[in-house]
Amino acid sequence: LKTYAPLALQFAEHLQAHVKGIKNKRPSELYDPEAYILSLGGKRLRPLLALIACDLFDVDSKAALDAGLAVELFHNFSLIHDDILDAAPIRRGQDTVHMKWNTNIAILSGDVMLVKSLQVLQSYSDAHYARLSRVFHTTAIEVCEGQQLDMNFETAAKVSVPDYIDMICKKTAVLLGASLQMGAIAAGASSMDQARVYEFGKHLGIAFQLLDDLLDAFADAESNFGKQIGGDILANKKTFLYLKTLELANGEQKARFDAIVANIDKIEKVQLMLSLYRELNIDTQCNTAADVHTQLAISALEGLEVNSEKKNQLIQFAHSLLKRQN
Amino acid sequence: LKTYAPLALQFAEHLQAHVKGIKNKRPSELYDPEAYILSLGGKRLRPLLALIACDLFDVDSKAALDAGLAVELFHNFSLIHDDILDAAPIRRGQDTVHMKWNTNIAILSGDVMLVKSLQVLQSYSDAHYARLSRVFHTTAIEVCEGQQLDMNFETAAKVSVPDYIDMICKKTAVLLGASLQMGAIAAGASSMDQARVYEFGKHLGIAFQLLDDLLDAFADAESNFGKQIGGDILANKKTFLYLKTLELANGEQKARFDAIVANIDKIEKVQLMLSLYRELNIDTQCNTAADVHTQLAISALEGLEVNSEKKNQLIQFAHSLLKRQN
Repeated sequence: LKTYAPLALQFAEHLQAHVKGIKNKRPSELYDPEAYILSLGGKRLRPLLALIACDLFDVDSKAALDAGLAVELFHNFSLIHDDILDAAPIRRGQDTVHMKWNTNIAILSGDVMLVKSLQVLQSYSDAHYARLSRVFHTTAIEVCEGQQLDMNFETAAKVSVPDYIDMICKKTAVLLGASLQMGAIAAGASSMDQARVYEFGKHLGIAFQLLDDLLDAFADAESNFGKQIGGDILANKKTFLYLKTLELANGEQKARFDAIVANIDKIEKVQLMLSLYRELNIDTQCNTAADVHTQLAISALEGLEVNSEKKNQLIQFAHSLLKRQN
Repeated sequence: LKTYAPLALQFAEHLQAHVKGIKNKRPSELYDPEAYILSLGGKRLRPLLALIACDLFDVDSKAALDAGLAVELFHNFSLIHDDILDAAPIRRGQDTVHMKWNTNIAILSGDVMLVKSLQVLQSYSDAHYARLSRVFHTTAIEVCEGQQLDMNFETAAKVSVPDYIDMICKKTAVLLGASLQMGAIAAGASSMDQARVYEFGKHLGIAFQLLDDLLDAFADAESNFGKQIGGDILANKKTFLYLKTLELANGEQKARFDAIVANIDKIEKVQLMLSLYRELNIDTQCNTAADVHTQLAISALEGLEVNSEKKNQLIQFAHSLLKRQN
């Protein structure tokens, strides 16, 4: 969104200064991966949310720069470690850290980034630092729990839709909520207002992930940024679509579902699953669930007494984020 | 040391309560490894140092319990990740976490322990929390740097004795220094006094590691707690003994050294290397270096104006720690 371009630029400069500061640090095996993963780009959505939240309370967004840096460093630490866990060779079109260097370096450089993500918060006053790190610790642990739950689901016999929502909430959504809350803390917002922007970010994150599931199955190649369609279906990934189908299928549909899961003909597998999804209106179900969380996100902002134009901009921003995927 | 038995017990109870608190936490894959590694025992030297430092300033050692818990959790996090890096199957006679579960679980449960090691410090006042975590962040990063340097040395063409001392300082010694400093912070000690106990712990840690190198090569089986003698020699590990030999050897001795390094006959390899060490008085060199750092440790306490009996107890404790290995 154009409105936030100055904030995005402000953070980009802050991040660039950080990356410059780690150049030539020794041992290089520990710091080069940090500079590398931060150079791969990305939307920088989390720090942008921190700056937006700070600005929302009419405090110079400069105050949220280190909170934003903390969440961006944490996010990139989690990418390095998650790529090891998922044995992923490619990240944003480039080698993952464990492929470019090795697993040992990926583990250790990730550990350092995790510590640094907390360390950068020490530029705040003691009182702000304590509040910021309280949110950060809780969130960091939830993100790890979400990743573990995601791994457990691969082999779990029974996973329900609520289990799945709980998992994506921890793995993805809470860090968006925390980014906003930390921006609000940097602005000196009240606990109530902190909770409001946190809930906004959390529900937005859930909606975002649900639409991501939908996109993986139903997007046309054009709007899907060249991603492979049906990757989740081919991997039998327990997404919202997969789990909702299991919930709604009758006996015959359940038998068909099991056959599709066992099918190894790639093209046929995707086609048959998409037919079954359509037959059960799973795409509508998923859109509706995403709408519910979008609505919850917006409702969370209701009691917030801030400049109404800024509040509307934030709501528009949420819609535009969700639309890009839909 | 008997004098410190009440402090050791006090921490043991605190740790037990912590372990009890993580029982039945979900997902269990993330918390069981923490309970497991904490159950494997260990000297709990780092938290004991934190409690000793606090008591040294005549403040109830209770104030240092969470600082001690933080360093013990951090130490155990680093064991979990280091065991992956070293592909170590056994830790204290039991399976390492990545062997008992798997590497993914070891990475992720270690990450959670790292976050929790910082989180437990939030029981302190904002001012104390900020001071404690400042020391902790710096130290945690140095420990990672030390581990990376240790890995780099395996394949490095040139490693000097000062390089080696720098590595063990980061990998092992700074956490002992930090443990004491954090106990001193919990007691409200001045920055000068914090620095004194930090330096004491750091130099003690260096002396400890140097004597550990010596023990690996020269200990009689009885005093070596059943460890294999000559493990470092067999692995061509670049210890103080190895590097000092390279520094002092003449041309003929250097040629002999290279032949021993290339020798794959285990018994002969250890015997020949020990002969060369003795010929060059490397054992005396190592003892002398350890003495220098022990002396630096004790000197660091000189300006400390505390109860002289307590100060002497601490010096005695240092000597007893070093003697156990010598």
